[in-house]
Amino acid sequence: MSSAASPSTTLDFPHRHLLGIEGLKAPEIEGLLDLAEDAAKSIRRPGEVRTDLRGRTLINLFFENSTRTQSSFEFAAKRLGADVMNMSIPTSSVQKGETLIDTAVTLNAMWPDLLVVRHQAAGAVELLSQKVDCSVINAGDGAHEHPTQALLDALTIRRHKGRISRLIVALCGDILHSRVARSNILLLNTMGARVRVIGPSTLLGSAIHKLGVEVYTSMEEGLADATWS
Amino acid sequence: MSSAASPSTTLDFPHRHLLGIEGLKAPEIEGLLDLAEDAAKSIRRPGEVRTDLRGRTLINLFFENSTRTQSSFEFAAKRLGADVMNMSIPTSSVQKGETLIDTAVTLNAMWPDLLVVRHQAAGAVELLSQKVDCSVINAGDGAHEHPTQALLDALTIRRHKGRISRLIVALCGDILHSRVARSNILLLNTMGARVRVIGPSTLLGSAIHKLGVEVYTSMEEGLADATWS
Amino acid sequence: MSSAASPSTTLDFPHRHLLGIEGLKAPEIEGLLDLAEDAAKSIRRPGEVRTDLRGRTLINLFFENSTRTQSSFEFAAKRLGADVMNMSIPTSSVQKGETLIDTAVTLNAMWPDLLVVRHQAAGAVELLSQKVDCSVINAGDGAHEHPTQALLDALTIRRHKGRISRLIVALCGDILHSRVARSNILLLNTMGARVRVIGPSTLLGSAIHKLGVEVYTSMEEGLADATWS
Repeated sequence: MSSAASPSTTLDFPHRHLLGIEGLKAPEIEGLLDLAEDAAKSIRRPGEVRTDLRGRTLINLFFENSTRTQSSFEFAAKRLGADVMNMSIPTSSVQKGETLIDTAVTLNAMWPDLLVVRHQAAGAVELLSQKVDCSVINAGDGAHEHPTQALLDALTIRRHKGRISRLIVALCGDILHSRVARSNILLLNTMGARVRVIGPSTLLGSAIHKLGVEVYTSMEEGLADATWS
Repeated sequence: MSSAASPSTTLDFPHRHLLGIEGLKAPEIEGLLDLAEDAAKSIRRPGEVRTDLRGRTLINLFFENSTRTQSSFEFAAKRLGADVMNMSIPTSSVQKGETLIDTAVTLNAMWPDLLVVRHQAAGAVELLSQKVDCSVINAGDGAHEHPTQALLDALTIRRHKGRISRLIVALCGDILHSRVARSNILLLNTMGARVRVIGPSTLLGSAIHKLGVEVYTSMEEGLADATWS
Repeated sequence: MSSAASPSTTLDFPHRHLLGIEGLKAPEIEGLLDLAEDAAKSIRRPGEVRTDLRGRTLINLFFENSTRTQSSFEFAAKRLGADVMNMSIPTSSVQKGETLIDTAVTLNAMWPDLLVVRHQAAGAVELLSQKVDCSVINAGDGAHEHPTQALLDALTIRRHKGRISRLIVALCGDILHSRVARSNILLLNTMGARVRVIGPSTLLGSAIHKLGVEVYTSMEEGLADATWS
């Protein structure tokens, strides 16, 4: 009724944490996408039991509520054989800095293998990662980064276009306040795509040029040549 | 310390979903009860590990809160070896139709094997089942059906009386607003019992006769011959 | 990637429940600490899969919210191979006595192996234990006992001092309202330590002498000879 499977892909990934796309090299991103593709295929084979994370414990630590993101991490980890524990800690009622460090130290004492952390403050996840012995995955920190969402978007692009390099990719809307857009831009640039951002200048921000993108305020001009083919 | 067990009963059940008792045939219901009896026995043998649902993922999707029902599904699925994820989505704050379809599509993308859904609107679970690739179990939809509760009641009856056919079964109280009563009536009729409903006419509804039951407004008359022996 | 391990320590513990430290003998406490030490070591070996509780189901039944305590039990049980289900039942909105018994009977029908119960009323956990067929662990009941916290503190003391007997241990603060202090005192006395309590008399209570402790209202005097070495 069930068959055990190990990953058919190995990954050269010399990082303990995944705090952002910034700092990742193209082959590392490519390797993550290959691994994800492999795992995604397993999930579609009913009854296949993956053991990648067997004996490992993952804690979902969400200081910001997000049913969908938390569920995705829970679902993925369970399908890979991990034990999963969810902790939702609303920060509205507590002294922020104190709770973050306090929580990190308490959880560290439980010796988990993986912490998946979402927090409303940029940099909070990295700060937390410095206080623990396990690996930390950033599931979104303020307006900073949301690396797994960018990886997921890259996987989708690669599936439909076969590659990422040399594509012209346009991101439309509120770029300034979006951690996803920031991670997307970093990833797409690293992978050799040409990135355009399109939006009213108030939603692009004055520092947008530093990210190495082409800036458009006209949807029509921004989408020219970036058509879906 | 533990021993693995597979179901000793096989079930001929040519339905992808379990949306209601309506449409089920007597041998299918009998088969479900046999399978449940077999699983229930396993649960009482400490340390026995069932593998029926190993490698399968079940999502409890509750748009209406119910600790007891959700826990029962979670408990049962885990005992059968499944990975379980709970999602409670209060509908009070959201646009109902949109959320339902939206949620269905999102969850479908995770490739679960089973969705257990409770919703306050009759027909919502069937609608959702049309949008997903997995199997859907109705854990109660509005005043429509609650098939697993009816199966559980039937199991209890069969345990105590040895059979369901030719029994006289009386349902007392608010029949009109009860999805459980409706599923009970459908199941008991299919299994060859004689069903009586007893209640004030305002709680029986004007269409009650269409369900093929004997209607009583007097408790005394309704319970005559339907005594517990 | 993973290796299965069974406990290398066996425990002579002729109790079905763990409702308090009261009634436990020194060798039983010592045995629990040995077992905990053994399990704690496993947790630090990544990928090691313990099977102590494989095929067993534990329900966390918390009538009083406590993210940290509930998470600890959930984490520990999962690492030992159990299936875990969390039920948080705020008692504020319900008729207390009725719910407790009602809940016990309902859960008992699910045939769990272990119930971990926290309740704000002293004695509630013992009452519940009389209504079920499974084992019950008291995770704190009113101002009565919190035995697992006392065991954890004892483990920490033993790690740092090598033994518990003949130590002078001072508990400082609000002793009167603390179930942890009460369980600590009972455990430390049983293990042959000398226990001091230090606090303002209003937070020690008039019956404190009955617990077999030395009472101090001066921090300076109480801590003399009880220094951390």
